[in-house]
Amino acid sequence: MIRPGDDLAGLLAEALRQANLAPRDGDVLVVCQKVVSKAEGRVVDLRSIEPSAFAAQIAAATQGKDARVVEIILRETTRIVRMDNGNLIVETGPGWVCANGGVDESNSGDPNLVILLPADPDASARRLADALQARCAARVAVIVTDTFGRPWRQGLVDFALGVAGMPALLDLRGDTDLDGRVLKHTVHAQADALAAAAGLVMRKGEGIPAALVRGYPFAPGDGSGRELIREKQFDMFR
Amino acid sequence: MIRPGDDLAGLLAEALRQANLAPRDGDVLVVCQKVVSKAEGRVVDLRSIEPSAFAAQIAAATQGKDARVVEIILRETTRIVRMDNGNLIVETGPGWVCANGGVDESNSGDPNLVILLPADPDASARRLADALQARCAARVAVIVTDTFGRPWRQGLVDFALGVAGMPALLDLRGDTDLDGRVLKHTVHAQADALAAAAGLVMRKGEGIPAALVRGYPFAPGDGSGRELIREKQFDMFR
Repeated sequence: MIRPGDDLAGLLAEALRQANLAPRDGDVLVVCQKVVSKAEGRVVDLRSIEPSAFAAQIAAATQGKDARVVEIILRETTRIVRMDNGNLIVETGPGWVCANGGVDESNSGDPNLVILLPADPDASARRLADALQARCAARVAVIVTDTFGRPWRQGLVDFALGVAGMPALLDLRGDTDLDGRVLKHTVHAQADALAAAAGLVMRKGEGIPAALVRGYPFAPGDGSGRELIREKQFDMFR
Repeated sequence: MIRPGDDLAGLLAEALRQANLAPRDGDVLVVCQKVVSKAEGRVVDLRSIEPSAFAAQIAAATQGKDARVVEIILRETTRIVRMDNGNLIVETGPGWVCANGGVDESNSGDPNLVILLPADPDASARRLADALQARCAARVAVIVTDTFGRPWRQGLVDFALGVAGMPALLDLRGDTDLDGRVLKHTVHAQADALAAAAGLVMRKGEGIPAALVRGYPFAPGDGSGRELIREKQFDMFR
């Protein structure tokens, strides 16, 4: 259970050591947003929140939503994408679209606390990568993830919010397929796929906040979770 | 390069043997839709297609789309979800939403052939699972995948279309988090996460049509890709 101010990189390095997983150059460390946000103090005490009339109205229309939580969601919201049946699908941060703006009431360690998304998950990932390099002498890429629902499809999957040390996208446009036909649209969202893969071992309710991916080849270098956000003019689902 | 009528299970079993990966009970074999469709003869010869006026109209409005391909897309379409900027996002099959109805011009082996999605990927997965069990004496779950774009997010990721031998969803609702709070929404789309994970090694352009996932714990039993399709009344993005 991480608390504000905890040395997350130190705790992760120690956990990796205990698991006999000394990080190596080219590993990818996937860390869930929740521990990052908690270590960074991105938590809000519900007792400090006075809901607006709009928040109270939304809460009244939904079954059992706390108006103070709705108020926090609205403060995290740059655009309400859909609002129906007690669901709030909103745009938050640099352009993530997710339920409740990523505001999270689970595993906060205190029923009065809710957890926000990290303010700048790329910077969080970069800090973790740098701290791990200092401690473990290995250049590790870091992906900060959260678990989102998807339109049209049931169930939740993990997605990349912040990325450091690798490109979030693997752009294969211009390469050729086995027939020699030029690939026109093939851009692999590799950071999202790594997040989803890590989600298979970071099982909910088991308190596993991080996973080390070894053996995935990638071009090291700068990267950003913002690569994964579709530009407005190409977004057909606004 | 798979051809209609090929014994896909036999070819996969042989490839696994050569890779020293004898399947074991509890493994998950992820197979891309393309080889399944080709083996099942789900290919169309463009020379046999007469585009409708509507298909010709759409093709004329896009840069360089073949009207016959548009015609095939429309024949695969149950609902046009978005149509703009030369993109056709449609609903197809039991409710998949994807670009171009999953009609695929790449790696068909012949510029006159395009590949459709499997008619019933659950049945395809079940046949592969049964044939592998007969050959390898191991009970393997099978996931048939395709690569889709996503709204709001850049880049493509692999998704599960057909599933056999495991549930597509892992329903954790009713379990408790580390604070003892009951999880209300936690349903993990495990088949989609396995598809995305496998996509990391089934790299485009390298001709790797399948991946074996070992060590992922799941409750064996029946399953279906249809579990992953959101019911209409809960779909806020129709």
